[in-house]
Amino acid sequence: MFASKLVFEKGLIPVVVRNVDGDILMLAFMNRNALLKTLATGFMHYYSRVRKKIWMKGETSGFGQKVLEVRVNCENNSLLFTVKQEGPGACHKGYKTCFYRRILKSGGLSRVEKKVFNPRRVYKGNSVSE
Amino acid sequence: MFASKLVFEKGLIPVVVRNVDGDILMLAFMNRNALLKTLATGFMHYYSRVRKKIWMKGETSGFGQKVLEVRVNCENNSLLFTVKQEGPGACHKGYKTCFYRRILKSGGLSRVEKKVFNPRRVYKGNSVSE
Repeated sequence: MFASKLVFEKGLIPVVVRNVDGDILMLAFMNRNALLKTLATGFMHYYSRVRKKIWMKGETSGFGQKVLEVRVNCENNSLLFTVKQEGPGACHKGYKTCFYRRILKSGGLSRVEKKVFNPRRVYKGNSVSE
Repeated sequence: MFASKLVFEKGLIPVVVRNVDGDILMLAFMNRNALLKTLATGFMHYYSRVRKKIWMKGETSGFGQKVLEVRVNCENNSLLFTVKQEGPGACHKGYKTCFYRRILKSGGLSRVEKKVFNPRRVYKGNSVSE
């Protein structure tokens, strides 16, 4: 199994999550068990460094991420997942992608995506992006 | 300046590098100075955790990465750069993208991109991806 050759730095590997339409949804971390759960179930599981536990994307919101393809980089220390994002979006702030703000040359920020859902309704007081 | 609000964990922030054509080229890390150099010069600079120094992509190979857009995620702890990759590719192994291998359901690996340059000629014995 190739997963045994991956480099988990302090137990974690960073993963890029790309939607099937090409949008980059998020960058997150997996530990080995989150990766194995992802490969076994076909749905994205991450490791939360804040809550110190594995969580499945969509377990609260219903907006899961179905795995379509997994790639590994040249150094075996990062992964690129292509997924089908279910529901309107991935970001716990109510956007399709977590990368909804652009850094301007002035040093300021510009929001470049529209809100696609109301996070208070979807997460019901949960402040995390499950 | 927004950069002052970014979260650098142990001095580093992970960055996703997307080519203007949509291909994900690499995932790398910047420290604050690498980010400031990138924003000031318009060309990607990274921090090498192995060599403990900032390097400019293309300084050896000539294959630089011109910054077109910078985005920040909802938690201010990762960045997404859209760049124009110069030359044939970004990967020090001779591929356009570092994510040139797919992990198969069997657990094996499949190379899904073609080699686009000879890394021995481009890096002249340098084993890193500068």
